[in-house]
Formats: sequence, C-alpha cells, structure tokens
Amino acid sequence: MKTISENACFDGTQGVYSHASSACNCEMTFGLFLPREARDGPVPVLWYLSGLTCTHENAMTKAGAQTWAAEHGIAVVFPDTSPRGDDVADDEAYDLGKGAGFYVNATQNPWKPHFQMWDYIAEELPAVLADTFALDMERQGITGHSMGGHGALTLAMNLPGRFASVSAFAPIANPTASDWGRKQLSAYLGDDDAGWAKHDSTLLMQDKGFEGPILIDQGASDQFLDLLKPEALAQAIAAKRQQATFRMQSGYDHSYFFVSTFMEDHVAFHADALYAL
Amino acid sequence: MKTISENACFDGTQGVYSHASSACNCEMTFGLFLPREARDGPVPVLWYLSGLTCTHENAMTKAGAQTWAAEHGIAVVFPDTSPRGDDVADDEAYDLGKGAGFYVNATQNPWKPHFQMWDYIAEELPAVLADTFALDMERQGITGHSMGGHGALTLAMNLPGRFASVSAFAPIANPTASDWGRKQLSAYLGDDDAGWAKHDSTLLMQDKGFEGPILIDQGASDQFLDLLKPEALAQAIAAKRQQATFRMQSGYDHSYFFVSTFMEDHVAFHADALYAL
Repeated sequence: MKTISENACFDGTQGVYSHASSACNCEMTFGLFLPREARDGPVPVLWYLSGLTCTHENAMTKAGAQTWAAEHGIAVVFPDTSPRGDDVADDEAYDLGKGAGFYVNATQNPWKPHFQMWDYIAEELPAVLADTFALDMERQGITGHSMGGHGALTLAMNLPGRFASVSAFAPIANPTASDWGRKQLSAYLGDDDAGWAKHDSTLLMQDKGFEGPILIDQGASDQFLDLLKPEALAQAIAAKRQQATFRMQSGYDHSYFFVSTFMEDHVAFHADALYAL
Repeated sequence: MKTISENACFDGTQGVYSHASSACNCEMTFGLFLPREARDGPVPVLWYLSGLTCTHENAMTKAGAQTWAAEHGIAVVFPDTSPRGDDVADDEAYDLGKGAGFYVNATQNPWKPHFQMWDYIAEELPAVLADTFALDMERQGITGHSMGGHGALTLAMNLPGRFASVSAFAPIANPTASDWGRKQLSAYLGDDDAGWAKHDSTLLMQDKGFEGPILIDQGASDQFLDLLKPEALAQAIAAKRQQATFRMQSGYDHSYFFVSTFMEDHVAFHADALYAL
C-alpha cells in the first residue's frame, strides 16, 4: 500500500492510496476519508462509486461528502472506476474501457485480463481496507452516481447482508435495455445476454429486491434521462413493495452540482441505517 | 454577456458567464451562484477570489461554498484570476502571468495591456453584475484563498465602505517581504516599491485597517507558510486593535480540503455582517 497523499479535512483525513490489485492485475488507486472518530476505533463505511470518465478523485473533490461524513463519523471510500495503466485495454469512446469498468468481471477479450471490477469492489478492496484502516466492515452502506449508482444498486442486491443501506444519484437503472448498458455488457460479458441480469438494477429489483432501505435521487432535467431509464426502476420498486424513497428532483441535471446538493440527505440516510445496526 | 452554463445547485443556480472586459481588454469568464431567494429580489453578495493557477472554476467546484450560501440566501461570485487569451502575455512560471494576476493594475510591459485585475474586480465586474443579476450591491462581503486572500484583504482595506466584512483562507499576507510578492509586484508594478504598499495586507493593516470584522484561517501545516507570512499580519492586527479573528488551524495544509473544511464558518461570518446592514 502506497500513500499518495493525506490532507486534513473536516477534522479527519482525506487520503489517497494505491496498491497492487490481483483482481485487476494492475496498480489501483482509491480515496478514503476517515473522520476524527477513526482515531479512536473502527467507524462505519460508506462506499461511493463514481460514474463514466471518473477516477477516484472526482467525487472526493467535488461531491462535498466529507462535510456530512465528518458530521456523522462515517468513513467514505472512493474507488477508481476501472483498471489503469499502459498495458490495460482501452477504447476511444468515453463509455468503454478506462473510466468505464461498469462494475463487472469481463469475460471477453481484450478486457478480461484487467477489467474485473466486480471482484475488485466486492472482494479485494474491502479486504485491503479492513486490513489497513480503522473501519467497521460490519457496518457498510453504498452509494454512487450514474454508472456508479448502477454499481451500488447491483452490488447491494447481489450481496445480501453486506450493505445495510443503498442509495444512488441518477443511476443507470436498466442497462440491459439502454445504449448505456447493452454496448458495455456485450463488450465485457459477450453477446449472450443471459448473464446480464445480475448487472441490471431493474431486473434485480424484480427478482430479489434489497433487504434494507433504498434512496434514489434523479434530476428531472438530466441530459441523460433516456439512457438512465429511472422509470423502469421506479416501476419495479413499487411493484416489489420495496422499502425505498425515489425522488425526482425538478430542475437538476446530471452534474456534481446535483450530486453535492443532495449529498447531505444521502449520508444522513446511510448514517441512520448504519447506526441502527 | 454569454451564458456558458447554468446548473441547478442547492435549490439555486450555479452559472458561468463570459463578457468582453474593457479593463482587461479580453473576454473574461466568471462563476456566479444565485440562491433561490434571488428569484424574488436582490440578495447579498460574497466575492470569492481564487489563488495562483486557479480559474473561475476551482472554488466553484471544490470549495463547497454553495452549500452554505444557499443556507444563508447569499450569492457568491467566482472571478477568474487573470486575463486570458492567446494575445495575453504569460510566463513559464506558475506564479506569474496567466492564473497569477495578483489583483493589481500592471504598469509594466508586457503585462500592462491586459493585467488590470484591480480595476476589473473593483470596478468593472461589480458594474456588470449589478446590471445583470438580482444582487444587492449595498451588501457585499469578500473572501479568498492564498493570492485571493491577498486580493480580498487589499480590496477591502483600500475601498472603505464597499465591503461589510472580509475573510481569507491562508492569504499571502505580507507580499512586499516575500518571494510570493516581490517577484510579482516588481514584474507588474516596477522595481520602485513605493507603490507596492497598497497591495500588502500587513502594511495596509498598519496604515489604515478595516472598519468591519475580519476572519482569517491559516493551516498550521501549510506547505507555503514561509511565503504567506501570517505572523506579520497577525502582529499588525493585534497592534492595530483591529476587530478580527485569526485562527491557526492545527494539521491543515494549503489545499481545498482546508478551504472546504472552514467554508461554513466563513459564509456564516459574512452572513452575520451582511444581514446586520
């Protein structure tokens, strides 16, 4: 584990670290905010998964999460969105390859050797974090934005018991029915879409749902609404009688100005769930 | 005036605009956060002046000011730090030329034709803002970071009656005695340092002070402490019996993690002064 940087932040520490990832077969970088309370013992953990084109850094500098995480005494993990490095496959498009891992384990070449983001987020990074930092891994929540909202929802529903709460900002909600999804799932997982359901929040909601509370915010003026398909997930949530709050926010777009506006509510939502454990 | 972008943000609007500046003789870009209250009439204005290498964008995306400005119903202006464009003189160093206007009117070539940032911030941009937006120009406060803290303090002390309150994050506090200052003041204003005092917060404090309250935060682990010289300003404030709060913050560095940590206090400080008018 290498320490890239550590900055005092809201009476805690915003760190950036890198480590050799066996899942992704490359060096991976992540951000971690530790509140002051972590000096005295393990604290609850909130995962923040970022969207297309992002690294570990975007949300760490622009989402304002530390303000509220410090208030509630919660750590926030900011993983990268894909493997990185000169020998990692890429694509000219912004929505495939680097910065676009989609939180899946690629089975297809040229992606398979490095694009194992599901295993990285679900297995490897939690183990690394638990070994290194004062984190209470029995109290985890997960959130994310856009592609990261997709990652948060699919991880939460596929790993029962792992996360006490899940939330999302403008998630890619029904990727098997969207160009933000079919393209990437086909490239990473192959054309046989039988295995895609595990990576579609709407299909997962129809099939199994989530045992805890869900909070979703979606901007009504989001420039990507047609690709995100929030209506499919909203319908599935209601049909499943899933404990959830789905908020369509008038006037807001897809930017971090939207994310930062509602971050206070999301962190408070997770804090409620994590401190109830 | 051109609208570059407008994003919904904390129930208000974060805009970016550009206009032809006669002071700087080039197109200038600025950010402006308008809280919801601006839909109903003019709101108080807080200026945020940025530091070396920054544009209008850095604080707008990283300082978290909108969170608290929305809470208090205050607008925040984020000007650029220098003139821009292909015909604007520049220097290879990060601390001279573009991104390093130092909030002075250059009298020396090659800077003189465009580097008139004092006039731009003190005269032209306020007039542009007053003409275009729902801003109460009778209620203005000013803050800034590093070079921008220098700008905020020097503008406030040189323009009695303009600003009800002034604050600064890690300001360049005594530039006539620092390499962050002598180099730039010499380049922009010439080697005769008789005219430099107007651009040195410590000298201004010794000479005239400020008629309202001052709040200054300085990180004790700031990597630029030797260049900032907070001790000179702290001494001058105390000697002047100036109404002020000077806080040395243990563990904090020069980054936006420091700025964002204390932004809530600064906005509240200005709100108190602006709403008391």
